Amino acid sequence: MSVTDDLVLGLTHVIDLPGLTEAAGAKLEAADIAALVEEAARFTGEKMAPGWQQADRHGARYANGTVTCPPHYTQLMRDWIDSGWQGIAAPTEHGGQGLPHALWIAVTELASAADMAFFLGPVLTAGAIDLLAGHATPDQAARWLPRLVSGEWTGTMCLTEPQAGSDLSALRCRAEPLGEGRYALHGQKIYITWGEHDLTENILHLVLARLPGAPEGSKGISLFAAPRILPQGGRNALRCGGIEHKMGIHASPTCIMLFDGAEAELVGEPGRGLNAMFAMMNAARLAVGVQGVGQGARALALAEAYAAQRSQNGRNIDHHPDVARMLAEMRATTLAGRLLALEAAAALDRHHLLGEEAGATRLALLTPIVKAWCTDRGVETASLGIQVHGGMGFVEDSGAAQVMRDARIAPIYEGTNGIQAIDLLVRKLARDGGAAMRALLAEVAATDPRLAHATARLAAVTDLLLGLQGRDPDAAQSLAAAYLDACGWLLGGWMLARAASASPDRAALADFYLARLLPRAEARCMEIEQGAALPTASRH
Amino acid sequence: MSVTDDLVLGLTHVIDLPGLTEAAGAKLEAADIAALVEEAARFTGEKMAPGWQQADRHGARYANGTVTCPPHYTQLMRDWIDSGWQGIAAPTEHGGQGLPHALWIAVTELASAADMAFFLGPVLTAGAIDLLAGHATPDQAARWLPRLVSGEWTGTMCLTEPQAGSDLSALRCRAEPLGEGRYALHGQKIYITWGEHDLTENILHLVLARLPGAPEGSKGISLFAAPRILPQGGRNALRCGGIEHKMGIHASPTCIMLFDGAEAELVGEPGRGLNAMFAMMNAARLAVGVQGVGQGARALALAEAYAAQRSQNGRNIDHHPDVARMLAEMRATTLAGRLLALEAAAALDRHHLLGEEAGATRLALLTPIVKAWCTDRGVETASLGIQVHGGMGFVEDSGAAQVMRDARIAPIYEGTNGIQAIDLLVRKLARDGGAAMRALLAEVAATDPRLAHATARLAAVTDLLLGLQGRDPDAAQSLAAAYLDACGWLLGGWMLARAASASPDRAALADFYLARLLPRAEARCMEIEQGAALPTASRH
Repeated sequence: MSVTDDLVLGLTHVIDLPGLTEAAGAKLEAADIAALVEEAARFTGEKMAPGWQQADRHGARYANGTVTCPPHYTQLMRDWIDSGWQGIAAPTEHGGQGLPHALWIAVTELASAADMAFFLGPVLTAGAIDLLAGHATPDQAARWLPRLVSGEWTGTMCLTEPQAGSDLSALRCRAEPLGEGRYALHGQKIYITWGEHDLTENILHLVLARLPGAPEGSKGISLFAAPRILPQGGRNALRCGGIEHKMGIHASPTCIMLFDGAEAELVGEPGRGLNAMFAMMNAARLAVGVQGVGQGARALALAEAYAAQRSQNGRNIDHHPDVARMLAEMRATTLAGRLLALEAAAALDRHHLLGEEAGATRLALLTPIVKAWCTDRGVETASLGIQVHGGMGFVEDSGAAQVMRDARIAPIYEGTNGIQAIDLLVRKLARDGGAAMRALLAEVAATDPRLAHATARLAAVTDLLLGLQGRDPDAAQSLAAAYLDACGWLLGGWMLARAASASPDRAALADFYLARLLPRAEARCMEIEQGAALPTASRH
Repeated sequence: MSVTDDLVLGLTHVIDLPGLTEAAGAKLEAADIAALVEEAARFTGEKMAPGWQQADRHGARYANGTVTCPPHYTQLMRDWIDSGWQGIAAPTEHGGQGLPHALWIAVTELASAADMAFFLGPVLTAGAIDLLAGHATPDQAARWLPRLVSGEWTGTMCLTEPQAGSDLSALRCRAEPLGEGRYALHGQKIYITWGEHDLTENILHLVLARLPGAPEGSKGISLFAAPRILPQGGRNALRCGGIEHKMGIHASPTCIMLFDGAEAELVGEPGRGLNAMFAMMNAARLAVGVQGVGQGARALALAEAYAAQRSQNGRNIDHHPDVARMLAEMRATTLAGRLLALEAAAALDRHHLLGEEAGATRLALLTPIVKAWCTDRGVETASLGIQVHGGMGFVEDSGAAQVMRDARIAPIYEGTNGIQAIDLLVRKLARDGGAAMRALLAEVAATDPRLAHATARLAAVTDLLLGLQGRDPDAAQSLAAAYLDACGWLLGGWMLARAASASPDRAALADFYLARLLPRAEARCMEIEQGAALPTASRH
């Protein structure tokens, strides 16, 4: 079963995209879905995947404010623009194809697996499109969105500052009004992915900053858009002050951005910058979770290819029981993550295309789980991939090491996995007293009797944690990561059970998962039960 | 509690080195132990640790058969030789100090944490010393051991060939007799750690090769010693053909070694080369496990320092519940690994210094667990260390990324962790029907009532796996890694419970471990119970 097969199965039979799109009045047939996924697999496999190691070795290079990408990225960006994939799920009124977000998620997995460093440019651009589609004025939308949707421009998200990482309320970048709706931005942003590069004529920076007299904290933050090249031509007063030397995604420039009176426009209302950012955050976090799946998929493909031709003790190593176990673990967790991400994307589509409020609720609940669980699994799967290669896995030539180096960023950015766990507990569970989670768990328990025990246990610790969060928030939050992990392992089992129902040839992998990986959910529940009883002094 | 405090506590009160050495007739007082550990911490902290990132950036460099190390390694190697640490546990008759192996293990942790890439040279040399002390003729020992024990020469282990990795029986390197006890070696070896370098005047290569007419398989393998510089002066006919470009330990040259008629001597008896290698393997594997602990310790030190000064949301992040949880997890697993390695070293010392056969049995049982569990934990702890740093962890400047890149080799070399798991099941358990393991589990269960449940469950799956190994070895071996992991988590809890008994200020960390990490042992037992019932088709 190829990744393409899995994605087509997931989209068509697990999340029933044909049914969902039919309800929305624009039915996608199974054949359409298959054709789109196969075309995306062909494009990413032929255009992106081959240059992946070369991109890592060259890396992004900085000199005097300019960033030079690996040489082959110039043509790759042209191919990307010509392919039209950037706009697949973007609004039709701005030049997009208006297809379901679930299809963009499939593209995201394939492209992240093929060349994660390159694809971070398009991923950030997609985030900018989402945000502007929701918050730009019609005039702004008309000027910016067609260029972003076509891929001719890229977009960035300028959030983090040296003193403001997980805590954005501490940011200090300021916007000075110039009159006529224009502003001058002053300040420094760090960790700006694709903040500067030599692949497109323009870059639109979306920047969080404070207006004069704005209150302290998150309510004083507004959102601005500042292009690299001004409409009248000429460079805006913003520049890249350097790029980071990172563990992985070497070809993705991670920029220090310096705003020195850069001309900008306000996007949305003053003081509502963080709200605008949060509106696109579900999609962005989902995309990062899918990067974890993509890295798992790349690790698996490399490991399978190696193990099928490496012989020791008279048989190819994929027939050695422990190597076969590692490959099965990689397959099972990667498929679980893939399908869980599609499930979340389907919830997004039910909300966007059908207006179902339940879709929004489900998406809000699943987003932190997909982001954190899938990216943690991405790192683990990449590490297993190295292990399958033996000594060769530690040698950069094999590519296995690069997957792990690249994958390691995903648990950090777009809200660390610790932030996701606290979001799940403090916002997603606590806001409805756990009702949405209980509804989800009821669905899970009804799917397969083998899920019943772990589900009941997770339901019990959900109540336990909600109670603890009321009495002793720090105690509850010290268990939040364990809780999110338990949810991920259980929901991964749910997805595999559904895949096995939809297609009997996934039954063996579902059996493997439910027997061998689902116990990790139970261990996390036991950890929460016992951890909740720890005295404060033993909590750290 | 510093690493030094932990090591002194472990050596003095957990494994009772004063009592052990008293029984051996050369008592080390608590004060002696503390002085030695503090001196080792001073040396490694002052001489090795500061240049660690510089060494990574420079790396080992290859050109025309020569390998150039980072420039500061020249002085560091002189300091290492002058310090006398190389010979601390080596036999006194060859210039060593004859101190317990447990002290060498403490040095190994401190030095691996300080600069793993550099210390691999001395680690391999220690392996060569062990091997030659047991198998060289008195004449050979007199010519080679004093130079190795002083550190003036380094030693290598030339085992792996391109077609012979985990399966050494497939090796092809050959030794041609030249008469008068001399041989000419022909062939290629790969992944030879510190196979060539510019830090010492000579290198003694210990090489596995086949004599003419030797049988196929492992019985036809003999052991040879070939110096880089011949006794009469001049280079031997062996050279480095290149070094690997690796994910980590950049400053440790991983060499392709080409033997083109190199003069060599036979070590030990013909056809007994693998046996000689295996004789030193417990110590070597123990040392690699300790490298995992050392990387965990370095990751923890970096993360603690960062978290204590990074403020978000108005408090330093080490007071944020999820960051505090990550730090506690890092502390608990690192201390567990540290003490478990000392426990194994004490078994080695009971065997070597007191002649206790039970020591050898216990060491044989613990070795694969220390090697695999501690190195897996090293990678995980390094990954948590990155996570504590947030975005900064992915930037190479912080050092957190380097720890993970360096730590990732340890689960691979000196027998992959999969090989360790199969060694535990197929050799260590099956050879006595599980008797040694049951004796160990009885000790564990008697230590702390909180260990009783997991211990009983592990005892049950021990029997289950032994039965399965008889009926269906592949099925049993597909569960071997889960079994080893269960053993590691349980024994780690045992060590922390003992540390808490020895010193009440470790009680909180033991509580944390037993409540929050011990469930991982239970999950692995559940995985084995359920996995053993899987049909063959669902096993991978």
